[in-house]
Amino acid sequence: MDFSSFLTSLGTSFLIFVVLMLLFAWLSRKPGNSVIYYPNRILKGMDPWEGGKRTRNPFAWIREAITSSEDDVISMSGVDSAVYLVFLSTALGILILSGIVLLLVLLPVAATDNNLKLSANSSTSNGTFNDLDKLSMGNVKANSERLWAFLIATYWVSFVTYYLSWKAYKHVSGLRAAALKSPDVKVEQFAVLVRDIPAVPEGKTRKEQVDSYFKGIYPDTFYRSMVVTDIKQVTKIWVKLEGYKKKLARAEAIYEQSKTTGSPEGKRPMNKTGFLGLVGKKVDSIEYYNEKINELIPKLEAEQKVTLREKQQASALVFFTSRVTAAAAGQSLHDQMVDSWTVIDAPEPRQIIWKNLLIKFYSREIRQYVVYIIVALTILFYMIPIGLISAVTTLKNLVKYLSFLKPIVEIVAIKTVLEAYLPQLALIIFLALLPKLLLYLSKAEGIPSQSHAVRAASGKYFYFTILNVFIGVTVGGTLFDTFKTIEDQPKELVSILAKSLPSNATFFLTFVALKFFVGYGLELSRIVPLIIFHLKRKYLCKTETEVKEAWAPGDLGYVSRVPGDLLIITIVLCYSVIAPIILPFGVLYFGLGWLILRNQALKVYVPSYESNGRMWPHIHVRLIGALLLYQVTMLGYFGVKEFRYTPFVIVLLILSLIFIFVCQKKFYRSFQSVPLEVASHELKESPNMEHIFRAYIPPSLSCEKDEEQFEDALSQVSRTTSSV
Amino acid sequence: MDFSSFLTSLGTSFLIFVVLMLLFAWLSRKPGNSVIYYPNRILKGMDPWEGGKRTRNPFAWIREAITSSEDDVISMSGVDSAVYLVFLSTALGILILSGIVLLLVLLPVAATDNNLKLSANSSTSNGTFNDLDKLSMGNVKANSERLWAFLIATYWVSFVTYYLSWKAYKHVSGLRAAALKSPDVKVEQFAVLVRDIPAVPEGKTRKEQVDSYFKGIYPDTFYRSMVVTDIKQVTKIWVKLEGYKKKLARAEAIYEQSKTTGSPEGKRPMNKTGFLGLVGKKVDSIEYYNEKINELIPKLEAEQKVTLREKQQASALVFFTSRVTAAAAGQSLHDQMVDSWTVIDAPEPRQIIWKNLLIKFYSREIRQYVVYIIVALTILFYMIPIGLISAVTTLKNLVKYLSFLKPIVEIVAIKTVLEAYLPQLALIIFLALLPKLLLYLSKAEGIPSQSHAVRAASGKYFYFTILNVFIGVTVGGTLFDTFKTIEDQPKELVSILAKSLPSNATFFLTFVALKFFVGYGLELSRIVPLIIFHLKRKYLCKTETEVKEAWAPGDLGYVSRVPGDLLIITIVLCYSVIAPIILPFGVLYFGLGWLILRNQALKVYVPSYESNGRMWPHIHVRLIGALLLYQVTMLGYFGVKEFRYTPFVIVLLILSLIFIFVCQKKFYRSFQSVPLEVASHELKESPNMEHIFRAYIPPSLSCEKDEEQFEDALSQVSRTTSSV
Repeated sequence: MDFSSFLTSLGTSFLIFVVLMLLFAWLSRKPGNSVIYYPNRILKGMDPWEGGKRTRNPFAWIREAITSSEDDVISMSGVDSAVYLVFLSTALGILILSGIVLLLVLLPVAATDNNLKLSANSSTSNGTFNDLDKLSMGNVKANSERLWAFLIATYWVSFVTYYLSWKAYKHVSGLRAAALKSPDVKVEQFAVLVRDIPAVPEGKTRKEQVDSYFKGIYPDTFYRSMVVTDIKQVTKIWVKLEGYKKKLARAEAIYEQSKTTGSPEGKRPMNKTGFLGLVGKKVDSIEYYNEKINELIPKLEAEQKVTLREKQQASALVFFTSRVTAAAAGQSLHDQMVDSWTVIDAPEPRQIIWKNLLIKFYSREIRQYVVYIIVALTILFYMIPIGLISAVTTLKNLVKYLSFLKPIVEIVAIKTVLEAYLPQLALIIFLALLPKLLLYLSKAEGIPSQSHAVRAASGKYFYFTILNVFIGVTVGGTLFDTFKTIEDQPKELVSILAKSLPSNATFFLTFVALKFFVGYGLELSRIVPLIIFHLKRKYLCKTETEVKEAWAPGDLGYVSRVPGDLLIITIVLCYSVIAPIILPFGVLYFGLGWLILRNQALKVYVPSYESNGRMWPHIHVRLIGALLLYQVTMLGYFGVKEFRYTPFVIVLLILSLIFIFVCQKKFYRSFQSVPLEVASHELKESPNMEHIFRAYIPPSLSCEKDEEQFEDALSQVSRTTSSV
Repeated sequence: MDFSSFLTSLGTSFLIFVVLMLLFAWLSRKPGNSVIYYPNRILKGMDPWEGGKRTRNPFAWIREAITSSEDDVISMSGVDSAVYLVFLSTALGILILSGIVLLLVLLPVAATDNNLKLSANSSTSNGTFNDLDKLSMGNVKANSERLWAFLIATYWVSFVTYYLSWKAYKHVSGLRAAALKSPDVKVEQFAVLVRDIPAVPEGKTRKEQVDSYFKGIYPDTFYRSMVVTDIKQVTKIWVKLEGYKKKLARAEAIYEQSKTTGSPEGKRPMNKTGFLGLVGKKVDSIEYYNEKINELIPKLEAEQKVTLREKQQASALVFFTSRVTAAAAGQSLHDQMVDSWTVIDAPEPRQIIWKNLLIKFYSREIRQYVVYIIVALTILFYMIPIGLISAVTTLKNLVKYLSFLKPIVEIVAIKTVLEAYLPQLALIIFLALLPKLLLYLSKAEGIPSQSHAVRAASGKYFYFTILNVFIGVTVGGTLFDTFKTIEDQPKELVSILAKSLPSNATFFLTFVALKFFVGYGLELSRIVPLIIFHLKRKYLCKTETEVKEAWAPGDLGYVSRVPGDLLIITIVLCYSVIAPIILPFGVLYFGLGWLILRNQALKVYVPSYESNGRMWPHIHVRLIGALLLYQVTMLGYFGVKEFRYTPFVIVLLILSLIFIFVCQKKFYRSFQSVPLEVASHELKESPNMEHIFRAYIPPSLSCEKDEEQFEDALSQVSRTTSSV
């Protein structure tokens, strides 16, 4: 990619960004769009425009994002969002502090040397270089004294990262502790999840077994237990019933509407009973759905009874009247055999993955390793399609194989745009398909909570992006030439990576620019959800519930968001010293990201769970992993530059490993479980145990009419007064 | 070593063994020796000869050892001894089951082939072989169909090991659980050890800080805390005082004695006050020591006060009124920062290493790694002396360098004996020096309990013996020839190991035989302690206390005993298929060992601590490690034999790794901490908390006169009635 196409790409990206910003400023002020731009506020029952005054300033959101405090973010969007913003601001801080020094020092040092010119003149190879390359480390002569500046810069970037990420870890740890010691009663702090319960002994029911076990260990604080049942069947019926209820509401709404628009007595809606409503007998919808609902209600109740009585599993939720006991129980070994009576902290009711509670200890272990193997294989096999795509989607190839495109491509403007975006677009679309698969695989491991599954999927996605995008693209360009070299001497990989980095600098500059201008432009303007919402509301939605569903904003989607950001910081760190010109782009990415995500957290996204920042250690270790990759790259690149003091970089590698180790030692366990001191803080009010217990009844099992039927599976042994 | 010197060695060993057995039979019946052969019984206040009848049968001890139950062993010598015996019987079982099949099948298969004869005839090299070698796998031709028998044998040995070690793990786990759930009050089950307490906040004392922290978390079960103090100084004075008290008693005893033997008014003993009682003024001993004692008592009391008030450390022992709370507290994270308020199960009072309680979190971490590095370096550098010793101590070299020995060595009998023992004796003496150093290093890690330090030292010693003795001797013989090969291709190490195994078979046969005949002969007959005791009693001991100290039996000494046994099982396993003739030797070793150690556990050794079998997982993992080494060796040796189905051995390697993994998963955590269900069992009586608390006061701080002075460091906040 030459310099002009880089500038074109940058310009186009910026243009798109400006257009999207203007669109946002215009669209977000229309009251009809408030459900798209302020759903979080609306769902919390707040006025979308704070105090009623609809500001005329289109950039007011920036002021709001900056002035709102971290507590605002936590109260609007939870600790997880706040922790994510801490990550963005930490990355921003690292890049700003690195950038100030590196741009001021390294650019002059590099620009005043003339290695590239010399080699372009002297060598017989068709060496090409552009103005950007002159500003990079590639322009410094081998074994030059100037390399000292780059070595010191490598240290500077590392120490800035250590310092800021340490501070961030401490801060996040504080946020988590504050959330956990909050005086509000949180149901999950009074429960533990028990799995791998041994077979029921003769003459006892499951609930008696569980109750007597825990009553024996915790005579004073045990409250009650709830045996987990296999709710697959009952949930199926319940979902069907809810579906019919929705359709009935819809049919009634259509009927009401028809009264106002058409004839006063209205037109009763009809539907076909067969496949997708396309075939079969035509019937009156309202009557049909009512009939179906009346059919299903007794069926659901019968299935609920069967489930509670006969589908009890070897898992249970156990409730305590004390936060400390629940926290201690979640960390303690209960049985002599580690694979029975395993106890962990209960997830929030909304994020329990019920079907995974049925999976046994060794089955979970085996599933985990099988998934790891599948993921590892996928990482390796995705290398091939990525390679093929980047090989095929050159403009030349497109013209060659799809010759009818030739006239279009010949137009200079289009050609430049295509040349700039073609390889990256393929990559971005390609990566968008992965998170779903990874989330599915992570859930298949037998993980009991949604947040844990998201963390696991996010971690896997990170390895994908780093291996396939960063290393794949970097080395891929020179891979075919050097494949034999690698095969012969695997050690060479580092120096190959280092050698091929500079030639890919502009590719990644474009990639980062595309990500932040177009990505964040789309994020803020929410064009796609807006269009979908308006289309749905106009042509599909008939009832209030349907409209509400149409604008439901979802959550931040950490599965792909966090690895995406980590990929950017990895790229920027790796190039930071080699081509410092990338740093302003990184600063822009994380600056814009922080600003826009803060806005989105405050106004748009509604978290679907709260894990109190358990994501952080995973982000942190990968951030330092990125730093390690950067240091390895620098080790290789200094080697390529034949710098005599290259071994000094090894010191940094060791420092990074020690840093990770110390951080894990000092902080990690308090992210895994709840420290007892934290759990022992005073509560605002004594907890309503009945309420806590009922919060864990899955919706498909909850039943308005009859409370007594729960007694089978949901035991009640003692309801001593709470003693928290 | 040729066949005749092997037989001589075997014969000599057996002769020594028979002599020692006869000595034992004779000596153990003399009443004056009962304190050497039955100290454990005497200390427990039992009659040494059970019911008074001194049996005339010299082999009665064998019947007693066999008929006594495991409960007898536990009641006489604790769970740790019982677990060690389980290890011996498991090893015995593995070797018997392997031996039956391997001897019956493999010996005929090997003996009827003629590879060695052929190669000795055809090759130009001076190939030597003896009758033993004909019974080994070396006598089977390369790529012969007969190798199938050896492959199946390899599988058989592995599966026997899996099965028996799994059963043993389950059994030991049960022993541990039974000991922990015992209804007897054990003081350590009501306490936890708290380290890394943060700085004392302004206006609070250390004990107030600790009390308020734990009272907040455990309002119902917290009893009291004891702040750990730096007792180095006070212990120094206390030891001095105790020394003077002993000397006074001794002087008085001498004085009393002189009244009966010499003049009726007696002769007052005198001593010199200077260095070692050799120089200085001569004084009346009784007066002098009385004076010294009267001087030291107020000094000790003053130092006790200073220690309790001013030498408080950032550690404390915290006592609970409930076993479950103490067990849960030992497993739970207490503070948001993992490196402060770290809580672990309290060790028994007698095995606390007080000075290690003063060491801080990161200091412990760093010490651990420093010790690991030192140990690793030691392993590597000990290779050199071992190599040198085995190179120098050949008979030829002896004669060459110490030519005056020539006439002695020329005598055939002496020559054969020397040839047989010289290399092994050097090795055994050499290894005897190590355990002390390793125990010292392990304590330097900052480990708070004696039993843990012993485990750590034993683990390190195992790596020493395996690396230096087994691999060192095996490869060492052929090392100098093949050093260049290894340097060039490290992969070759396995096949070099495999190739050099057969030629060292007789060396190890002798080694094992020496170990069990001479080692266990000495163990049972206790000749050395017996002689030392009689000498001491005759020439040194004057008081009853001194006599008692002279026969104090000590404990089993796991530091060197366990690695020694593990070395034998490693050697026997590795040779089991290659030269099955080693199996009967292994069976004899573990059979005799089990018998004699059972006798010693019942009658002789007094355990100095009880860790409830925490040693077992370490033994087990190393046992399977030995199996892995065996499998790797077989992989190499089948490769050397050019057997086409060699890769089948890899399956075994994977199986072993899975087996270790499953065992660790299933059992290990319950060895690290006390399962709550186990701790929740009923107690015989409600615990006397005051007694439990006082058990942890170090002897140098305990004081008969004044109870109140403890209130400074040993806080007393609540003495609620116990609620276990």
